[in-house]
Amino acid sequence: MKAVVLLSGGLDSATALALAARDGFQCYALSVNYGQRHQAELDAARRVAHALGAIEHRVFRLDLQTFGGSALTDNSIDVPIDGVGKNIPVTYVPARNTIFLSLALTWAEVLNADAIVIGANAVDYSGYPDCRPEYLQAFEKMANLATRSAIEGHPLRILSPLVSMTKAQIIRSGIEAGVDFAMTVSCYQADHTGAACGVCDACRIRRAGFLAAAVADPTRYTKPS
Amino acid sequence: MKAVVLLSGGLDSATALALAARDGFQCYALSVNYGQRHQAELDAARRVAHALGAIEHRVFRLDLQTFGGSALTDNSIDVPIDGVGKNIPVTYVPARNTIFLSLALTWAEVLNADAIVIGANAVDYSGYPDCRPEYLQAFEKMANLATRSAIEGHPLRILSPLVSMTKAQIIRSGIEAGVDFAMTVSCYQADHTGAACGVCDACRIRRAGFLAAAVADPTRYTKPS
Repeated sequence: MKAVVLLSGGLDSATALALAARDGFQCYALSVNYGQRHQAELDAARRVAHALGAIEHRVFRLDLQTFGGSALTDNSIDVPIDGVGKNIPVTYVPARNTIFLSLALTWAEVLNADAIVIGANAVDYSGYPDCRPEYLQAFEKMANLATRSAIEGHPLRILSPLVSMTKAQIIRSGIEAGVDFAMTVSCYQADHTGAACGVCDACRIRRAGFLAAAVADPTRYTKPS
Repeated sequence: MKAVVLLSGGLDSATALALAARDGFQCYALSVNYGQRHQAELDAARRVAHALGAIEHRVFRLDLQTFGGSALTDNSIDVPIDGVGKNIPVTYVPARNTIFLSLALTWAEVLNADAIVIGANAVDYSGYPDCRPEYLQAFEKMANLATRSAIEGHPLRILSPLVSMTKAQIIRSGIEAGVDFAMTVSCYQADHTGAACGVCDACRIRRAGFLAAAVADPTRYTKPS
């Protein structure tokens, strides 16, 4: 069994990769350099892919700064640091997961893979619409009408093993599956060494997860907490 | 009303753009430089976007040669010239329309657009699965679960005005809507001037369309027909 695993370099996608490898998939890790602020996550992705035994790791370039529309792809919009709110935040990148899953779909078809694995999560998350199960199901349905593989009898699954877990459950599952979270970078504005700001939504959700899991947080922070 | 119009530079997408403009859309044309053999189509797209009054035309770069898997993105695979067959041909690019529509979805959300227009056609076509109405409907459903716009009450339509037309009908509709087909390039292996080979599937389908429409074919061919 082969799977293309979307790997951002963060905590969730590292766990998704570890779980897929544990479940017997040969994993082909795909990261996307889309012009995001936090390029350090791509270095993290390289380390994680190697440590978790991915067969191959590719970093695909695609400049979403062309379109902007997000604090992560437009440097004139600040990353919010005041806490996780109720609305979809400005760190939402329009259609990001749809583009990432589409690129994974191309590679999956070329590899004749059985699945695409994504670490999307809809519990302790930022409210991004493209992390919800109903979205992922609709993508799977569309994908199985899109490709020659599917038409010729080899449908593809979109697997999102973390989608209904809390952050604490993800952290415990990751540790059981052999993830070293010190390698991962979640922060939206990590510095070039991968040190985290501690105050953006990604940092807050991650930190709260380690607390709730009662697991020591290995994150390096640039600011005292 | 705003629409993002996928514009390859070929006959179909030029017609789709003309019909969208005629129907009152402000059109934002999007072409993709994906490492295709026939780069001349991008020059054609620029001419067509300008001639048909697109508000803006962007050429997005994305290197699908990274993944290969098609005669259009892997120069070691020849473009077939023996006639249109019954199976999906090697010019099929894995998940291409899914990637293009996803990029259009990003831009559409940033623009707050009402529609994405695609010149897909499932009658006189090469059998690509991602040109069929059922695929396009599934993409629309997925897109309206993917974005903040949709969630916040502004759903998006995927419009494919040509999907059930014959090539001859497309040509007649395009002429009525003001398309100068001499500007367009359909050939999979057009030379750098845009001259067409006359024997690939795209050329054969296009040529048969002009014949069936009883319209003079303005295509420049490199080989005698």
